[in-house]
Amino acid sequence: MKYSELFAKPSKTAPHDADSANAKFLAQAGFIHQEMAGVYSWLPLGLKVLKKVEAIIREELNEIGAQEILMPALQPKDNWENTGRWDAMDVLFKLQSQTDRQYALGSTHEEIVTPLVGSFINSYKDLPVAVYQIQSKYRDELRAKSGILRGREFGMKDLYSFHATQEDLEQYYEKVKQTYLRIFKRCGLDAKVVESSGGDFTKKYSHEFQVITPAGEDDILACPNCTFAQNIEIATMKAGEACPSCGNSLESVKGIEIGNIFDLNDKFTTAFGIKYTDEYGEQKIPIMGCYGIGTTRLVGAIVEAHHDDKGMIWPDEVAPANVHLVTLNSKDEAVNEKVLATAQGLRDTWEKAGKEVFWDDRTNASAGEKLGDADLMGLSFRVVVSPKTLEQNGVEVKRRDEDEAKIVGLDEIVM
Amino acid sequence: MKYSELFAKPSKTAPHDADSANAKFLAQAGFIHQEMAGVYSWLPLGLKVLKKVEAIIREELNEIGAQEILMPALQPKDNWENTGRWDAMDVLFKLQSQTDRQYALGSTHEEIVTPLVGSFINSYKDLPVAVYQIQSKYRDELRAKSGILRGREFGMKDLYSFHATQEDLEQYYEKVKQTYLRIFKRCGLDAKVVESSGGDFTKKYSHEFQVITPAGEDDILACPNCTFAQNIEIATMKAGEACPSCGNSLESVKGIEIGNIFDLNDKFTTAFGIKYTDEYGEQKIPIMGCYGIGTTRLVGAIVEAHHDDKGMIWPDEVAPANVHLVTLNSKDEAVNEKVLATAQGLRDTWEKAGKEVFWDDRTNASAGEKLGDADLMGLSFRVVVSPKTLEQNGVEVKRRDEDEAKIVGLDEIVM
Repeated sequence: MKYSELFAKPSKTAPHDADSANAKFLAQAGFIHQEMAGVYSWLPLGLKVLKKVEAIIREELNEIGAQEILMPALQPKDNWENTGRWDAMDVLFKLQSQTDRQYALGSTHEEIVTPLVGSFINSYKDLPVAVYQIQSKYRDELRAKSGILRGREFGMKDLYSFHATQEDLEQYYEKVKQTYLRIFKRCGLDAKVVESSGGDFTKKYSHEFQVITPAGEDDILACPNCTFAQNIEIATMKAGEACPSCGNSLESVKGIEIGNIFDLNDKFTTAFGIKYTDEYGEQKIPIMGCYGIGTTRLVGAIVEAHHDDKGMIWPDEVAPANVHLVTLNSKDEAVNEKVLATAQGLRDTWEKAGKEVFWDDRTNASAGEKLGDADLMGLSFRVVVSPKTLEQNGVEVKRRDEDEAKIVGLDEIVM
Repeated sequence: MKYSELFAKPSKTAPHDADSANAKFLAQAGFIHQEMAGVYSWLPLGLKVLKKVEAIIREELNEIGAQEILMPALQPKDNWENTGRWDAMDVLFKLQSQTDRQYALGSTHEEIVTPLVGSFINSYKDLPVAVYQIQSKYRDELRAKSGILRGREFGMKDLYSFHATQEDLEQYYEKVKQTYLRIFKRCGLDAKVVESSGGDFTKKYSHEFQVITPAGEDDILACPNCTFAQNIEIATMKAGEACPSCGNSLESVKGIEIGNIFDLNDKFTTAFGIKYTDEYGEQKIPIMGCYGIGTTRLVGAIVEAHHDDKGMIWPDEVAPANVHLVTLNSKDEAVNEKVLATAQGLRDTWEKAGKEVFWDDRTNASAGEKLGDADLMGLSFRVVVSPKTLEQNGVEVKRRDEDEAKIVGLDEIVM
């Protein structure tokens, strides 16, 4: 992609009302566009990041036998009354048709997935089943904030699993936990598994995946020495006390929750009367787990975890492109032609090798503007082709996460 | 994918209330699941078809320089009041937040895309711009019907283009028209370009893309001899009269509208005060075109156009898989092992060659059930490996759209 072809170009100024690094940089770089509080459009570069995150999630979930489906946002009131959440869930958007039918706008999908999957479960041989979707969710948040971290419309991957036995559920729950850690790692995030409340569903803990950063809105009691971590909501200890696991002194930190996993027990399968016949011919109720990753929030968390004062620093696997190619101009037309031809040759070579290249091909912008935009946009590698680098028969290469640029000969350059 | 791993298996019976071939076959084959009138979930096999259709659309639109974005379904009331459509559009779902903010649920996206793209347009050099998204739309239809043909929540690809001059818009409009015909052709549909009303937007015609089939709900006056076709709503002639283009006798036919293209003129850019500076430094209003394809409806239209009384007949490029591999069993365990090994070898070879294989690996179903499901699901090629075919050192191959099956030697088989 070329800068000149991009309709949503980076802006010289950050939005004046940005309350977080992700809101500021994603908007300024032309990755997202705020439509109203808590509601964003995804522009070409931002959508590329979001799709890469989604692709990683799909790949990893397919690996553990989960099947992708797509459920509707528009959901019948009856289903929500069945579970008692029509009245109990205060963030549930409700709407009404011309003919007075009442609908919920999906904030989560237990009310749809349970009868849906249940209709295909007859025997213990049909279990376990795991299905997921990547889809927009709606929550009537009193206060949308922190850019794409807490919105009223947002992307989510929700996975639901159905099991015959508690043991089987727990095995799958553990498998998902490990899969989530892999997903987050590929997205450049070192997520901490944090024990939190099981809600109405279970007496045991559920688990949150938290990115520890001062920008987080969750308070976590964590051991800096081992994996122990609890959401402050359930913690019975305080910062400074000894870690029950290793004895180290516990710390209070902030986190962004990017995923969570729940043992739902039979709450929803009982509500919808889902049964299966076990190996002895008896009718049993399957139990469920649910597992969420906020996909748009994940993009925001990556920015919170990876930026400096100049802009974003994308982990390569989720960057909108791998190489930010910059051409600088000369007043000498013959030199310019050589710069262009060199850049084009490099781009073609990299694209053939499967790398994506973003080329800042502007002729009416200064070197400072171009390098500033490269820092703002945050692709992993910046490659400058200029009259000066060509004098040295090379290009200037700089990693976004390093300070030093170096000249690499045209013959040696490999991305 | 294996039959045994599929959670949403084909059913022995069709839904009793299906009012169309697509509602009947897609539900029975486990491609979709009705959640309520006009609202469906997409199950693994159906989602595969939908994604293939979406991939074709993306490929063809990227080819004509359109940039993909993703806009929200939740939209501020102000934007809809700006264009007068808050009150004027009777299918618009409206909802309200806890704090009494009012939102529309997007039935279309001119109210979002115009100020969004407008914010990046300053000069004539920023034009033309074309952006599109593939996203869910919501319409409060009085009567949802015909399966996924007319729903309350449905998938749509909407493309919007912005131009400095009428001439430029018309060139792009024509380019999109040709692109749409290519998209539909790749989806196995021979779409007819039909003149229809330009609505409030233009005094000229707009164009619909109609699949001519008795299952359609639109009435069209068409020439069987040339390309002339008009929606009955604007036609000034009747069936039997002479085609104004070639003189042949006009016919009245039914069609399913799978796409439409509109010249919006400056209706929306004026409403949102979008301006650009032309080459003489003057402030001008850009004009817009909009172009829609109902993605989920397109899947339904493919089924309406391609089925027989046994089930669906997918065009290969949008089929959930390319090969429906069926293994039949023997009472002789050694023979069964040979059947399995042969099937596995074929599957691996085809998958290596980039083909997708659906393998009916059931051991507890009769040959009749398996072949019936293959007809219902409608993949392009059915390949049976059985004790009998192995006696002839081959497999039985049948195209779904042909009656004859033939034995092909194991050494000769290429998909």
